[in-house]
Amino acid sequence: MRIKLLISYDGTNYFGYQKQPNQKTIQSELEKAISKIVKNKTKTFASGRTDANVHAKGQVVHFDSDLLIEEKKWENAINTNLPEDIRVLKVEFVNDDFHARFSAVKKEYRYYINIGDYDVFTNRYSLKMFNLNIEKMKEAIKYFEGKHDFTSFSYYVEDKPTSKEIFKADINFIDNIIEIIFIGNGFLKYMVRVMVGTLIEIGLEKRKPEEIKNILAAKERKKAGQTASAKGLILHKVYY
Amino acid sequence: MRIKLLISYDGTNYFGYQKQPNQKTIQSELEKAISKIVKNKTKTFASGRTDANVHAKGQVVHFDSDLLIEEKKWENAINTNLPEDIRVLKVEFVNDDFHARFSAVKKEYRYYINIGDYDVFTNRYSLKMFNLNIEKMKEAIKYFEGKHDFTSFSYYVEDKPTSKEIFKADINFIDNIIEIIFIGNGFLKYMVRVMVGTLIEIGLEKRKPEEIKNILAAKERKKAGQTASAKGLILHKVYY
Repeated sequence: MRIKLLISYDGTNYFGYQKQPNQKTIQSELEKAISKIVKNKTKTFASGRTDANVHAKGQVVHFDSDLLIEEKKWENAINTNLPEDIRVLKVEFVNDDFHARFSAVKKEYRYYINIGDYDVFTNRYSLKMFNLNIEKMKEAIKYFEGKHDFTSFSYYVEDKPTSKEIFKADINFIDNIIEIIFIGNGFLKYMVRVMVGTLIEIGLEKRKPEEIKNILAAKERKKAGQTASAKGLILHKVYY
Repeated sequence: MRIKLLISYDGTNYFGYQKQPNQKTIQSELEKAISKIVKNKTKTFASGRTDANVHAKGQVVHFDSDLLIEEKKWENAINTNLPEDIRVLKVEFVNDDFHARFSAVKKEYRYYINIGDYDVFTNRYSLKMFNLNIEKMKEAIKYFEGKHDFTSFSYYVEDKPTSKEIFKADINFIDNIIEIIFIGNGFLKYMVRVMVGTLIEIGLEKRKPEEIKNILAAKERKKAGQTASAKGLILHKVYY
């Protein structure tokens, strides 16, 4: 039986999603919890990894098991064995051809910037900034929409295709929180954080909105802005 | 010069407000930060202690210093030396007869209960519950208003006066979050948490709203409900 999990986590205390020797990661906690239930080492497959300190509202993972228990019971059993900052929101039995990574068609990331007073209660999940010109950022973000080579906005990884399509790039502004939304068919390593870091420099009026075009065309990481802090980033949803 | 601080903290990683040997507490972090600036051991006085895992949006603290720097510079200097989960929101120079504890006339505590889906992002700051009858809780909470002997709703401390006045006790319900508000002239140890624990039992329909009257009259801790988890509790404001 193939089992699909919708999971959410506060990534603050983890060394990223992916299992790594001698590091506390989301995947290792999840596999520990599942293996305890099925009494067997169980391998899980996620839609993709998230970096250290990045959060998720809607990460998707699948695994296979012969254990015959209902979906809701799986959910409760796994959650009982997980720490409080990782939670299974939904369990669904799926066809054997479903793959959390390869079946995904779109991903949505959101990035949060607090431009109001410092708030210890949202500080783990947002970047604190001052004096951002949001109108300029709104103008700039539109240049990311469409199909582009995102080499300038990512960490170079050999042999990985660098062309991606962004279906939607938008900014909402609610109660001193800037919410930056990206929906795309895939994202390169650090891509969202470098896009956000560059948008911040535009918001600070150190760069002009239309520069995005030239940065994309240059295909050089150093042309883009800083990599924004991981803590404001949330994997919001994976679309299948 | 007497200096008044308005501070906020996420209490999750602390062993309460008050300094204790070999424990990480809010007060010890704050005094460490101030002492570093004034280059002298500095004693601070808070409006009152908060228990382990209890948070604050508006704790008030004072201390004395001869260092002549502006209010805003004090704020920045202390914050630079504080961890990210403790923050000075405001610094104010006050008269020497101001005392964070003895000048306080009212305190406001708020308690948060999430009755929606489990949310890793609010889990540190709220209690997760199901099936609470909020109307019954709203009816019950009104019995706390006024002047009462709160022995039944506190941890017994010898020689402490047990009579307190609650000026306002109310419940708001917004987006699956129950916000319980208590404003009073003072609160005994665990008092808010025992009142909330008892309200929860009423919300679960294990007790009737009017029982509050009898529990108050009994002056026996065991007549009241469980002590609710610290993590949902926030010291919201101290009034002077």
